Amino acid sequence: MDNQEIERKWRIKELPEKLEGYESIKMEQAYLNVSPTVRIRKENSEFFLTYKGKGEGISHTEYNLPIDEKAFYHMLPKCDGRVIKKTRYVIPLDGGLKAELDIFDEPFKPLIIVEVEFPSVEAADAFKAPEWFGEDVSMDFRFKNAALAISEDFSPEDML
Amino acid sequence: MDNQEIERKWRIKELPEKLEGYESIKMEQAYLNVSPTVRIRKENSEFFLTYKGKGEGISHTEYNLPIDEKAFYHMLPKCDGRVIKKTRYVIPLDGGLKAELDIFDEPFKPLIIVEVEFPSVEAADAFKAPEWFGEDVSMDFRFKNAALAISEDFSPEDML
Repeated sequence: MDNQEIERKWRIKELPEKLEGYESIKMEQAYLNVSPTVRIRKENSEFFLTYKGKGEGISHTEYNLPIDEKAFYHMLPKCDGRVIKKTRYVIPLDGGLKAELDIFDEPFKPLIIVEVEFPSVEAADAFKAPEWFGEDVSMDFRFKNAALAISEDFSPEDML
Repeated sequence: MDNQEIERKWRIKELPEKLEGYESIKMEQAYLNVSPTVRIRKENSEFFLTYKGKGEGISHTEYNLPIDEKAFYHMLPKCDGRVIKKTRYVIPLDGGLKAELDIFDEPFKPLIIVEVEFPSVEAADAFKAPEWFGEDVSMDFRFKNAALAISEDFSPEDML
């Protein structure tokens, strides 16, 4: 288990239909450190500490470790910048893949990003994005959630 | 790889001879959270984020994840209580085991604790401690480094 994550992310052209029919997760997350990433996150009623190693391109090491509500709220005031709140819709794609569609709340609203995690770099390269996906922003640092959290001059309009 | 750690710890009766002949590591560590443990540590010139899951008895889940000097000093002011500074001597024991002898600096001086990590609970139970080991304090919460860091009424004399 080398805990390697391979992800690509995109802007979107339009929202898929009938979003409310998909699994959704309310997320709140904040950052103790940006590089390597040390993040705390609430997912509905579960809580995690996440470490993301410095990666190359679309690949990085990632560990998701369980914490509890008390630990989350103990560390939340220690975090940098702003708390990111978003709703994630999990949308099945062809080939067993899943689109994770993140609709951000204030102050990042109306930002929307979609991510897909892949089993290999080859699968990521070969992926044919659905029609509703927009520009690939995998390599654009501004679209990293950690960068959003600590950004001081975020204007959502630049990101759409 | 289930990242399970099985450790026992003891007070000491006396210091082993010729400590300066053993490998030693200068450590500085502090805690973002106590339970589960989220710790940052400097080991000589290396830096780590460590997560220790809530364990049972002498066993717990542990992940040691690399960070860098910048990340360490970014998170250090976020930590609770006091920074623990100590010198760890690594002393080979029979059967391929190692004693990690921690000699604490101020404000915990003259505290000294020795720990041994085992490959299994059976090995931990079967272990015959060397003569220079003192009382087994594996189950005494006060001897957890995290507890030391956040203790407000620590008196080293009670711990010897």
